[in-house]
Amino acid sequence: MSRWEPGARGRLAQAALDLYQERGFEQTTVAEIAERAGLTERTFFRYFADKREVIFGGQAKLQEIYTSAIANAPASATPLDAVVVALEATIPGFQGRHKIVRQRQAVIAANPGLQERELLKGTLLTSTIADALRSRGVPGLSASIAAEVGAIAFKIAFDRWVSDPDEQDLSHLFRASLNQLKSIVAGT
Amino acid sequence: MSRWEPGARGRLAQAALDLYQERGFEQTTVAEIAERAGLTERTFFRYFADKREVIFGGQAKLQEIYTSAIANAPASATPLDAVVVALEATIPGFQGRHKIVRQRQAVIAANPGLQERELLKGTLLTSTIADALRSRGVPGLSASIAAEVGAIAFKIAFDRWVSDPDEQDLSHLFRASLNQLKSIVAGT
Repeated sequence: MSRWEPGARGRLAQAALDLYQERGFEQTTVAEIAERAGLTERTFFRYFADKREVIFGGQAKLQEIYTSAIANAPASATPLDAVVVALEATIPGFQGRHKIVRQRQAVIAANPGLQERELLKGTLLTSTIADALRSRGVPGLSASIAAEVGAIAFKIAFDRWVSDPDEQDLSHLFRASLNQLKSIVAGT
Repeated sequence: MSRWEPGARGRLAQAALDLYQERGFEQTTVAEIAERAGLTERTFFRYFADKREVIFGGQAKLQEIYTSAIANAPASATPLDAVVVALEATIPGFQGRHKIVRQRQAVIAANPGLQERELLKGTLLTSTIADALRSRGVPGLSASIAAEVGAIAFKIAFDRWVSDPDEQDLSHLFRASLNQLKSIVAGT
C-alpha cells in the first residue's frame, strides 16, 4: 500500500463511524476500521492517534477558527457580537457534512463515555472563546459569560440542525436561537 | 459496630474527601475511607454505592428541589424567573458547607474522569429544570434556553463562591452574575 492514499482520512473516518454505529464504539477495533476502508492499521495511525480521535479530532481546528475570528472582529463589536462572529465562522466547515455529523452525534449518544468526552470538548471550546475575548481586553467574568451564552445559542441551533433529517440552514437556526435567547433573557 | 452510627454519613464523606485530596481519587480504597472514619466498609456501603457517590450523591436531592420550586413558582413568573427561583432554592443547602464544597471541587479538578462526570451531572440537572418548565407549559426550545441561561449564571456565581477562601454570600453572587449576563446579552 502506498504511503499516500487519496482521501484516506475521509475513508477511514467513514468506515469508523459506520462500524461504531453497527457494532458499538467499544466493540470496534482499529483493524476492522482499516479493513473496512481497504487500508492498513498503519495508515489509520498516520491520521488518528486512536479510535476516539476519529470523533473528536476536529477540536484543534475549531479552536483555531474561534481564536482568529475573535482577534479579527471589529474593535466596535460587543463581547457577544465577537462570539457570534466566531461561531458563525465554523458553519462553512459543517456544510455538505450533515449526514456524517448526524452519524457522529448518534454514535456519541449511544455511549456514555463519549458523551462525557463531548461535554469536555464543549467546555474546552468555550474556554478558548473566553480566552480569545480576554486577549481583546474583555474582563474575565464578562468574557466567560459572553462565551457561555454564545455557546448555548449555537448548541441549541446545532442540535436542531442535527436532529432534522432535512438539512436546514445552520446560520439561520443560529440567528433564530440567539434571538430567542435574547427575548427570554429580556423577559419578553 | 452498631447498625446505627450517629453522623456516620458525614464522617465517611469527610474521610473520603480528605483521602481523595491526599492520595488521589483512584488511589483511595473504600477500606481506607472506612478506617479513617473509624467505621466498617459495610457501613460505607450502607450510605454510598461506591467511591464516586461520595462526590455525586447530591444529584437526586437537587433534582427534587428544582422540580418542586418550578412547579410552585407563581403563574406570572417568566421561564427565566422560574429557573432563578429554582436555583436560589438550592442555596440554603450549601450554607455552612463552604469548606467541604471547596474540597469537593479540588478533588474533581484533579481528576479528568471526575471532571467529565461533573459535566454530565450539570447537563442532567439542566435537563431536569427544562423538563420542569415544560410541565408548566413552557415550549420545548424556550424551556431549554431558559434552563441553560439560568444554569450558566448560577455556575459562574458558584465558581466564584468556591474559589474565594472567604465565603461570600452565594445569593448575592448569583444575582450579580445574572445581572451581568442580562447586560451582556442586551449588548450594554
